[in-house]
Amino acid sequence: MPTLEVCFSPSLLHLFDCNNKIVVVIDVLRATSSICTAFAHGVNTIIPVATIEESLSYREKGYLVAGERNGEIVEGFDMGNSPFSFMGEGVKGRNIAITTTNGTQAIHAANDASKIVIGSFLNLDVLSEWLMVQDADILCLCSGWKNKFNLEDTLLAGAIVNKLRGDSGFDIDCDSAIASEHLYLKAKDDLFGFLENSSHRKRLKRLNIEKDIYYCLTPNTCPVIPVLRDGALVKL
Amino acid sequence: MPTLEVCFSPSLLHLFDCNNKIVVVIDVLRATSSICTAFAHGVNTIIPVATIEESLSYREKGYLVAGERNGEIVEGFDMGNSPFSFMGEGVKGRNIAITTTNGTQAIHAANDASKIVIGSFLNLDVLSEWLMVQDADILCLCSGWKNKFNLEDTLLAGAIVNKLRGDSGFDIDCDSAIASEHLYLKAKDDLFGFLENSSHRKRLKRLNIEKDIYYCLTPNTCPVIPVLRDGALVKL
Repeated sequence: MPTLEVCFSPSLLHLFDCNNKIVVVIDVLRATSSICTAFAHGVNTIIPVATIEESLSYREKGYLVAGERNGEIVEGFDMGNSPFSFMGEGVKGRNIAITTTNGTQAIHAANDASKIVIGSFLNLDVLSEWLMVQDADILCLCSGWKNKFNLEDTLLAGAIVNKLRGDSGFDIDCDSAIASEHLYLKAKDDLFGFLENSSHRKRLKRLNIEKDIYYCLTPNTCPVIPVLRDGALVKL
Repeated sequence: MPTLEVCFSPSLLHLFDCNNKIVVVIDVLRATSSICTAFAHGVNTIIPVATIEESLSYREKGYLVAGERNGEIVEGFDMGNSPFSFMGEGVKGRNIAITTTNGTQAIHAANDASKIVIGSFLNLDVLSEWLMVQDADILCLCSGWKNKFNLEDTLLAGAIVNKLRGDSGFDIDCDSAIASEHLYLKAKDDLFGFLENSSHRKRLKRLNIEKDIYYCLTPNTCPVIPVLRDGALVKL
């Protein structure tokens, strides 16, 4: 029976065995939401890069350069981390290099996995249905905030656990998965309200991105599954 | 306003600043429950030690030697980690050296704290009331299971958050604390049932210690506050 686990932080990932697992990288606010948005709007590939310097080297190759540090756009970049900047004619058919405080770091941390896919509320159902038929062990990796546990990533992990429980026959013997699902069930009717007091909501409130948050918590607007292939994210 | 935070694992403790904080070490099943039991039954001091070898060196000094690895008593030790072995005439007035898989390791991990106290459901109310009047930042440190998140320690952290919220004026701007409290509120009417499917419950079920678990989840049977002084736990 395949296992379904949740890891609350890249700092805890060494306690899990990623080998032969599908790792779902989650950074709801906002990296993985923006990545799903991009592919739903016709972006070609997205390279997750660790540093600002590395991002800039992609510009010379014709890439758009996207990223944030501490929630704010990096100076000189084409776009920050707002999902709304990953839409429209300007991105269609383009390649993007992206670096963020949490999400892209988590993608790199999981490099032992047999497959890395990108999760957000925006692709929740299509991703869950795909995971359900892979017959593989699954680990949801929450990016957190600078490696600390965060609520919004946990809620999405809990939503995935909730979708995969039941007839699908996953062995859910992981306290983080059980806790995530409890929290999701408590929050699901009003994700926005549930997160009202979370630390990241407060942090982002200062940046005036309420509209981004509302968008990132709205399920199933981007039915795509971004997957990492040879260091680049592409649409499955 | 003093802060109240929860850290889900000793592996995440480096992300928190322990300086000038009171750290509440939590290992519900069973180290911190056994430590509270011991002091409620007249034990004099308890030395948390990291290794089995170090424990044995205390035997020569007249200490009782207690400890477990993977839930089972260490060969040659006077007692394991069951709270029931920390009761009765045999322990009264004695000194104990204890080493466990998770709890004593967490105590050592928090050595930057201004004060380290021991939390369990057994001393929940008396500990919370004491914390409330200290006018100090508080960090609840869950021992987890081999550094992974676990549910039972999280529930106690959530119970403490719930007690300290309200009029006491703590600043609770920590997602782990918010999540812990939600989980506690969901579980509190039947902690035993809530943990039925948790990984540690399953692990310990194999060891036939249902009675221990039931005891460890019963609030307020041991109104003591164990505090670390010069490397030894004593009753406050």
